[in-house]
Amino acid sequence: MKSNTSTIKIEKAQGSKLENTNFNKLAFGEVFSDHMLECDFVDGQWQAPKIKPYGPIELLPSAKVFHYGQAVFEGMKAFKDEDGRIWLFRPEENFKRINKSNERMAMPAISEEAFFTGMEELLKLDRDWIQKGFGNSLYIRPFIIATEECVSASPSKKYKFMIICSPAQAYYSGEVRVQFSEKYSRAADGGVGFAKAAGNYAAQFYPTKLAKDTGFEQIIWTDAKSHEYLEEAGTMNVFFRLGDKLITAPTNDRILDGVTRKSVISLAEEFNIDVEIRRVSVKEIVEAAINGELKEIFGSGTATVVTPILGFGYKNEKYELPKIEDSYAKFFKDKLMKIQYNQAEDKFGWRHEVK
Amino acid sequence: MKSNTSTIKIEKAQGSKLENTNFNKLAFGEVFSDHMLECDFVDGQWQAPKIKPYGPIELLPSAKVFHYGQAVFEGMKAFKDEDGRIWLFRPEENFKRINKSNERMAMPAISEEAFFTGMEELLKLDRDWIQKGFGNSLYIRPFIIATEECVSASPSKKYKFMIICSPAQAYYSGEVRVQFSEKYSRAADGGVGFAKAAGNYAAQFYPTKLAKDTGFEQIIWTDAKSHEYLEEAGTMNVFFRLGDKLITAPTNDRILDGVTRKSVISLAEEFNIDVEIRRVSVKEIVEAAINGELKEIFGSGTATVVTPILGFGYKNEKYELPKIEDSYAKFFKDKLMKIQYNQAEDKFGWRHEVK
Repeated sequence: MKSNTSTIKIEKAQGSKLENTNFNKLAFGEVFSDHMLECDFVDGQWQAPKIKPYGPIELLPSAKVFHYGQAVFEGMKAFKDEDGRIWLFRPEENFKRINKSNERMAMPAISEEAFFTGMEELLKLDRDWIQKGFGNSLYIRPFIIATEECVSASPSKKYKFMIICSPAQAYYSGEVRVQFSEKYSRAADGGVGFAKAAGNYAAQFYPTKLAKDTGFEQIIWTDAKSHEYLEEAGTMNVFFRLGDKLITAPTNDRILDGVTRKSVISLAEEFNIDVEIRRVSVKEIVEAAINGELKEIFGSGTATVVTPILGFGYKNEKYELPKIEDSYAKFFKDKLMKIQYNQAEDKFGWRHEVK
Repeated sequence: MKSNTSTIKIEKAQGSKLENTNFNKLAFGEVFSDHMLECDFVDGQWQAPKIKPYGPIELLPSAKVFHYGQAVFEGMKAFKDEDGRIWLFRPEENFKRINKSNERMAMPAISEEAFFTGMEELLKLDRDWIQKGFGNSLYIRPFIIATEECVSASPSKKYKFMIICSPAQAYYSGEVRVQFSEKYSRAADGGVGFAKAAGNYAAQFYPTKLAKDTGFEQIIWTDAKSHEYLEEAGTMNVFFRLGDKLITAPTNDRILDGVTRKSVISLAEEFNIDVEIRRVSVKEIVEAAINGELKEIFGSGTATVVTPILGFGYKNEKYELPKIEDSYAKFFKDKLMKIQYNQAEDKFGWRHEVK
């Protein structure tokens, strides 16, 4: 993809919202840092990115994103260590993935330069928004939307790439119990489930609302064909621990190739924990829950790193997992976060310093 | 759903773009009339709709529609008869369907009043944009987008309902040949295929682009499970004529319940044309194409009413349909348009006058 991103224009915010921000009381994704990045695709190429004060954008109501959901995003985090150095975690994975998403959604690839140089400039400008402290971070949301002003159902000729940033606290995600999906589906074979396409997420809101009404926080999606195999939760990949063995579904065209999932698998291998990457049947997990072999279920994702799942529901039965001392969920979360916060050796070269 | 839509505030455009619009040279969906309707959902209810000059809207880049594709739309047309009276075609079907879409996408229902009163006021104001002449129309695009400024993946608390209008010409949609999908899918069982959800459309752009590269204009989607059954084209339902019998797939949670599809079925029944509403297998159609039993394929949808399909591709084979004298496609298109333009008796009560 041709690009013309060598010069980043920076317009600084007049003041900062920092002083009015209570970092001890942050709801996820509601507060945004002082600046944002904006980069337009017109006439077949990406233009020079601009960094400007966070604020509204103007679009005509005919912009294709409003009608056809032609939009992709990524989720990343910036961490600050005790020396004030800023780190990203495996950002090249997000870069590769946004372009996989772009391809599937018939959108133009974003250049490495616009993605990385833009993001790093933005983070340097808003560095005070990244708070020190284990668990604190600046959540980074790169996204691309179709902006051509035309309501015919075809790929847009114009796009806008943006990065916005939201400070996030170490947070306790609450007690999470999940429902195994019996009827609703997240993605079809040959569909867009593997892409971080906007529409994949809204499609889950209603079934998730129904699950919440019956006492579950999230859904673990099953394959649309048979509903016999467990795939992923809406914003997390999922791991099952049977005895001392870990199992997770292989990624495919329905399942998102999560960066945290990959990292958990690498860590498991490093620490000689058996990991099987294979289809996981509902039947197997229900039976293992009954006979006591199922020790843990946990989710992996950028927002909470690793989320322990305390129980699940299937066909009107509820299954509660045992309390566990040597929890894998806790182990991986700690290992991953120590790497992210530059408190542990980075054997895999996952950290990327912003300087 | 509570609503507070009794008063519509109207702000008229200073001038009109009408004089600068060449109605003989309209690309679909690129030109918009002078006004638009805007209605916000905040604090748990729809506010009073406003009609104002067509122009940009301002949203923060954190608005949920940009990230999660929480958006639905409808497509309708207004027609002008020779006496200058304005007609809609079965608008109550679109109203019912937008609320079905809203439910599946965890969005609030829109009130009949905001939908209809708003649309009629807008059409009256922009009545000169509806050109007389068989085939000319004003394409109406009601849509709802999630506007809450928050990047957590959950249903929005704020929405914007809008109606924009684009003049459309009688147009020749070109020679349309379709590819039967072998790999890609449009929708899963238990998914959102039946809803006019934004993300359903962008998901088709890439496979459609691939089909275009091999000489087809559209794809007929097959079921995601087996790819053995023909379902719908991206923006049209599909009919197959075997001998004198018409076959179309039943609607389900993957297939959109098209208003034109329903109307074709009713007309077929009125004119004693056999219609079977049942699963249509790829195998059956390929065989019928080979043995000459397949007389026609056509699509039905708001934009082109009825679109004859001249041939199809499947597994690297191309099948060309015979030229036909007594075409059903032509018959239904003519019957439907005559009802739409108030040139024929409206037995079913499908016309709705805007006055």
